[in-house]
Amino acid sequence: MSISAKAPKGTRASSITPQQEDFPRWYQDVVSKTELAENGPVRGTMVIRPYGYALWERIQNELDKRIKAAGAQNAYFPLLIPESYLHRESEHVEGFSPELAVVTHGGGKELEEPAVVRPTSETIINAYFAKWIQSYRDLPLLINQWANVVRWELRPRLFLRTTEFLWQEGHTAHASAKEARDYAIKILQTVYEDLMVDVMAVPVITGRKTAKERFPGAEESWTCEGMMRDGKALQMGTSHELGQRFSKMFGTTFQTPDGIETHVWQTSWGVSTRLLGALIMAHGDDYGLRLPPELAPIQAVIVLISPDSSIETAGIQLLQELKGRGCRVEMDSDMHTSYGRRITGWEIKGVPLRIEIGQRELDAGNVTIALRDTGEKQSIPVASASAVAIDALSSMQHRMLEQARSFRDEHTYPATALEDAAAKAIGGKGFATIPWSLVGNKGEEELAKEGLTVRCLVAENGSLPVGIDDDDTLAVIAKAY
Amino acid sequence: MSISAKAPKGTRASSITPQQEDFPRWYQDVVSKTELAENGPVRGTMVIRPYGYALWERIQNELDKRIKAAGAQNAYFPLLIPESYLHRESEHVEGFSPELAVVTHGGGKELEEPAVVRPTSETIINAYFAKWIQSYRDLPLLINQWANVVRWELRPRLFLRTTEFLWQEGHTAHASAKEARDYAIKILQTVYEDLMVDVMAVPVITGRKTAKERFPGAEESWTCEGMMRDGKALQMGTSHELGQRFSKMFGTTFQTPDGIETHVWQTSWGVSTRLLGALIMAHGDDYGLRLPPELAPIQAVIVLISPDSSIETAGIQLLQELKGRGCRVEMDSDMHTSYGRRITGWEIKGVPLRIEIGQRELDAGNVTIALRDTGEKQSIPVASASAVAIDALSSMQHRMLEQARSFRDEHTYPATALEDAAAKAIGGKGFATIPWSLVGNKGEEELAKEGLTVRCLVAENGSLPVGIDDDDTLAVIAKAY
Repeated sequence: MSISAKAPKGTRASSITPQQEDFPRWYQDVVSKTELAENGPVRGTMVIRPYGYALWERIQNELDKRIKAAGAQNAYFPLLIPESYLHRESEHVEGFSPELAVVTHGGGKELEEPAVVRPTSETIINAYFAKWIQSYRDLPLLINQWANVVRWELRPRLFLRTTEFLWQEGHTAHASAKEARDYAIKILQTVYEDLMVDVMAVPVITGRKTAKERFPGAEESWTCEGMMRDGKALQMGTSHELGQRFSKMFGTTFQTPDGIETHVWQTSWGVSTRLLGALIMAHGDDYGLRLPPELAPIQAVIVLISPDSSIETAGIQLLQELKGRGCRVEMDSDMHTSYGRRITGWEIKGVPLRIEIGQRELDAGNVTIALRDTGEKQSIPVASASAVAIDALSSMQHRMLEQARSFRDEHTYPATALEDAAAKAIGGKGFATIPWSLVGNKGEEELAKEGLTVRCLVAENGSLPVGIDDDDTLAVIAKAY
Repeated sequence: MSISAKAPKGTRASSITPQQEDFPRWYQDVVSKTELAENGPVRGTMVIRPYGYALWERIQNELDKRIKAAGAQNAYFPLLIPESYLHRESEHVEGFSPELAVVTHGGGKELEEPAVVRPTSETIINAYFAKWIQSYRDLPLLINQWANVVRWELRPRLFLRTTEFLWQEGHTAHASAKEARDYAIKILQTVYEDLMVDVMAVPVITGRKTAKERFPGAEESWTCEGMMRDGKALQMGTSHELGQRFSKMFGTTFQTPDGIETHVWQTSWGVSTRLLGALIMAHGDDYGLRLPPELAPIQAVIVLISPDSSIETAGIQLLQELKGRGCRVEMDSDMHTSYGRRITGWEIKGVPLRIEIGQRELDAGNVTIALRDTGEKQSIPVASASAVAIDALSSMQHRMLEQARSFRDEHTYPATALEDAAAKAIGGKGFATIPWSLVGNKGEEELAKEGLTVRCLVAENGSLPVGIDDDDTLAVIAKAY
């Protein structure tokens, strides 16, 4: 990591619109002032700038470890898919057709068959799974790919809805429906939920999508839903049971131990650069980003207040100590920029910890440690600074998760009638929970009129609901991104 | 890493065409039998299978470290580029037009302006550099991206020439021509040459491209050229000085300290999944891949010959020891596959070291260590096996580089006349070197008729030639991929 220590040109925290005044504008301001991303020239596309990409690299790194631990291997399938492939699964093509980018010319000629730029890869991957899988011994086949996808977006918004986005998409084949379900849920919990809660400090609700909200072509979709600081829900990751739909269309079969030719059961699952949107909106405040230490590309910055050599020596010493303790740390010795601008710059970038070294304090053997999450500042002995810093990062991670959890709980309203749920979700700016039996498909249509959706179904005891009509199944209702 | 230990179904080393018999077919056989990659459905595209992708991940990992050490930051620019952008630089569009994939429809409608799928990103990146750079203080701006690109390919060949490939592309802007040149060469040497020589064990020749072979839009192109086992050259990576051509077309300017508005000088540089082709062809033999230990995703495999518990215990012990020493090691305890098939499977995959544990040998306190590069097998005490293995990997890395270097030197022929150079390169299946003053642009045309090209210009003393007309500049002539 070597993100520039310079504050973005002309940035002042006060140039960020307060969240309370206009949340969408606050979001835009943060994305732009922290130089995370900007719009691309083709409608809805996005340029991810170095600091934004550094966040994505951290997410990739953490995800990739967990995906491999879940047994999947990385591979890469082509960007361009023959148009006819998409037409093989009817719900799938219906779902994606309005969003496709189509290549009609290649190498200076019109193509015999147009190719679509992948909006997702179930179809092309099945064409290969069908060749690679012959016997039950070839199962499970667990594949993941890191890729870009294109879905034409009419109302684009950086990170949240972009025409092109980066993601990982997992695709697996199994010998039974139960194995496929178990794997879809394993990914949901041990990969996605674990990343979101433990690294991103976003206390997501995991649950099942209703039929209306399912992935086109899936038999069940499982989801992680986070609450943003404006009370709206953000779907942060989904894991789908595809059943035998794609395997039937592509002839993806295996021989059972008894020699019976059987279609495989499949899953697919993905999270994308949308997670950066979640990170911004779940934790950010009026001073900019607030990054949970586990995720932050820069966990701590040592700010040298003046160019004195004793300060520099102390800074270098602390830098080495913190690096030795595994901390992602940088030193800011930029004397061309004013102290105030430098501090504001690190704040807006959401760097969890700032250690400031000034002459008078150093003469007394102390430095100042400032916590981005609470704004707290404290003078501590320089000798114990690195130990204190490591402890502070660890408690900040915990505190940010608890803060987000309290916020979510305070903005979650149990309801016992549909109108009541809708009113509470809208008026209280948050989630309403209500027995799914009081909603149903008809209720979902009613909610849609108010701009609300059922984000997911959960069991009252917090476990994932298996039977959709179980008595204890609750619907979580909210406005959503 | 968890590549399946199973030998590919039905694989026998003898099913690989010998190199001497038919090198291109040998290549195809290796790519397919080792399950590295296969053709995609859209002409020229490629599916990279898990073992192939694991090789790419190793290369990415090693490259990314070096790129960051050279000061560049990762970012991401859109896949889709407005067609008009490419037309701004005339040589650039002329070079790439025949290879473009064009998106004419998006979101169900014909686009007002077609978008090309990026063949490379100089144009779109300049559109942003022009916004981001204002002052000399913003320079140098050093950006890299990991991305896929599409160049329509009429004679596709897996890894070597594919319609879509994966690569990294670096793009930088500098305050002077000299700084830009220095950086282009820094990348060539400290990133590319270092990776190719030290990790891939391919002793590349670094030099300058002739005007004819330059990147479209570049003022100078620098290259790393490797010799394959058939004596042909493979261009493995290039680094370009773009001068002010793109900056003039996109208005990418900065204010000098004296307040003078000046166009930036730029570089771009890239290596791609083509490196996998180099790896296969620089080291492979009639038994399959041979991977240099530094690069190998699996450096050593412990093969348990029978399912006895003492063997398993010894295997697990050794696995832990090797992991503790930082070795990428796996254990093969697959008793469903015959011993012969398992061994052949690990050989064809090019795993550098095999440690076989059998009952009789183990009873005597020994295991067998087998080296993939030389085929040598040796019985060694189990107690010292992990130490011996680590040493063996290190000397194998060195030996493979030296072997490739000897092969290259034996197939490099000094010549003093153009006809002689051509005859030697063709007859000797290798490189011919000849003073550039005896070739010239006209000589290049002559060579082209024989299927030969000037791969690069080098100084006689091995340093990079600065002036193209220097007396001591040698041309390296070869057939190339």
